[in-house]
Amino acid sequence: MPRNPQILLDNRPQGEAVASNFRLVETDTPALADGQVLVRHHFLSLDPYMRGRMNDAKSYAAPQPLGEVMQGGTVGVVEQSRHPRFQSGDQVVGMGGWQHYSVVDGNAPGMLRKVDTTHVPLSYYLGAVGMPGVTAWYGLDRIIAPKSGETVVVSAATGAVGSAFAALAKARGCRVVGIAGGPEKCAYALEELGFDACIDYRLHADVKSMAAALKEACPDGIDGYFDNVGGYILDAVLLRMNAFGRIALCGMIAGYDGQPLPMTHPALILVNRLKLQGFIVSEHMEHWPAALAELSGLVQQGQLHPRESVAQGLAAAPEAFLGLLKGKNFGKQLVKLM
Amino acid sequence: MPRNPQILLDNRPQGEAVASNFRLVETDTPALADGQVLVRHHFLSLDPYMRGRMNDAKSYAAPQPLGEVMQGGTVGVVEQSRHPRFQSGDQVVGMGGWQHYSVVDGNAPGMLRKVDTTHVPLSYYLGAVGMPGVTAWYGLDRIIAPKSGETVVVSAATGAVGSAFAALAKARGCRVVGIAGGPEKCAYALEELGFDACIDYRLHADVKSMAAALKEACPDGIDGYFDNVGGYILDAVLLRMNAFGRIALCGMIAGYDGQPLPMTHPALILVNRLKLQGFIVSEHMEHWPAALAELSGLVQQGQLHPRESVAQGLAAAPEAFLGLLKGKNFGKQLVKLM
Repeated sequence: MPRNPQILLDNRPQGEAVASNFRLVETDTPALADGQVLVRHHFLSLDPYMRGRMNDAKSYAAPQPLGEVMQGGTVGVVEQSRHPRFQSGDQVVGMGGWQHYSVVDGNAPGMLRKVDTTHVPLSYYLGAVGMPGVTAWYGLDRIIAPKSGETVVVSAATGAVGSAFAALAKARGCRVVGIAGGPEKCAYALEELGFDACIDYRLHADVKSMAAALKEACPDGIDGYFDNVGGYILDAVLLRMNAFGRIALCGMIAGYDGQPLPMTHPALILVNRLKLQGFIVSEHMEHWPAALAELSGLVQQGQLHPRESVAQGLAAAPEAFLGLLKGKNFGKQLVKLM
Repeated sequence: MPRNPQILLDNRPQGEAVASNFRLVETDTPALADGQVLVRHHFLSLDPYMRGRMNDAKSYAAPQPLGEVMQGGTVGVVEQSRHPRFQSGDQVVGMGGWQHYSVVDGNAPGMLRKVDTTHVPLSYYLGAVGMPGVTAWYGLDRIIAPKSGETVVVSAATGAVGSAFAALAKARGCRVVGIAGGPEKCAYALEELGFDACIDYRLHADVKSMAAALKEACPDGIDGYFDNVGGYILDAVLLRMNAFGRIALCGMIAGYDGQPLPMTHPALILVNRLKLQGFIVSEHMEHWPAALAELSGLVQQGQLHPRESVAQGLAAAPEAFLGLLKGKNFGKQLVKLM
């Protein structure tokens, strides 16, 4: 069996996550037991939620255990199988973690899923046609539930969730406004992702300035907001929400380092009769088939062709991940393992 | 026509509302035009929402105009009628304002409603079987939507909304925990209103202490919260909410004086996948008949017999209202006009 390079969580962050929180090791891949499948990973997904799990805090998911392989989504190819449903050469998506190989119980529900790369590139199953895409779908379709003609806003607009959100919202006849960092991302949002407007938060670094930019970009107010960041951007959006607006809360990346990020005017929830709802897409598996079908269709029709940031090699994963937390990625952040 | 004492909004509060914001005047009651009804008010309702309207700020309702009669709910008796649906002697509930008499257009939908006092006292139509009762019903039934056995919490527990909330929640098989100010109110909540536990916020004046008290009173966590106050109590409740909890936001009395009251940890909405929803009961008139029928039934069955704080005479209304904003009332605050 092949040797398996792995990245472990070595110690927990004190405030900001740093490269020395991780440790690269190499182990042997165990021989397969009956029912098991050996997967060679081609791409590893890096996602903001991983930062939350690095803390030893009560949250929706158990903390990432210390001294164990960092958990995360992977796509790859079956290299050996002792399970009748999988064959060598099958392309699969799973939660293989930050390592070259994983050994998976082929019977465990939802752990390994065969995918078709005829029309959708393999890596997309970690992004647009994977967890981030379904995340956008759930927040838009099940929480914001926009009517045609309404205005919806998404932060982290050029990321994996934001780009899928834009395509899904345009398909529903919405005006879609993004918030992203820097002129290059904003231009890309307008030219490639179909956003009707995009606000560069670096030019609007406080609530007042952001609220003014939102007013200009959303002349009819905001009916729905998909929040990936929290903090002052959420405060500014609250100032521009229309009555009966809906906010899907999916990430508060700005607060993962430990400092609490208050909401300045929660009374606006009452004043404007808003609904705010937090969700975790993995708790709504019943919606995945419909969401993946729509996302796959948008990719095949050319309505969704998201950008990817690809780091090369497992050893590059920690720095790429830390960059993701600071918005240095441009599009879905992946690590190419072979 | 009789002379009509009235209280006007004379000037807007600078921070805290004070008695000199109001002015007592007396005018003539105009002769009735065709289709109009003259109502003699017996009781005037004082409600926290009135404080919000005293500000000249964007809100869900237009501000109370300066120099005009303070708006508010009233119950009374028709004294003269030039409308075929109303007759002298009819008992009615309406929005007559802070004055002895009002002249109402009998055709305006929802402005004047005849009520039956065979089993329900007239004043209850301003409280338990009126707007506050329906407010409790909507937040509980349409937003929190509890399952039997779940734990629900309400602040301002012995007020008009809180007491109706308790009766409605017990009828749905919930554990009901109140938050109120002082040992007398807490004892009343337990002994008379059916609460399973009641927390005296004066003994728990910070988030940590309140969260500890909630933990003790809600050993299985909190599934639903009806928020009448905002501020640190909302912060503490958020720390004790169960996954998929629902929070109905209906009042943020602590913030009406102008200072913003932040929410310290909005990330908890995501962590615990909560839903927060603000609402104004007057926007959901389609639910009033069902709500009023249930509330009236609870009163007739002796399940809901709320306390009233009754100020005597129109001139006492401003002080009674200012006391209400400070929690000095005990039960539904009314002003008896005759």
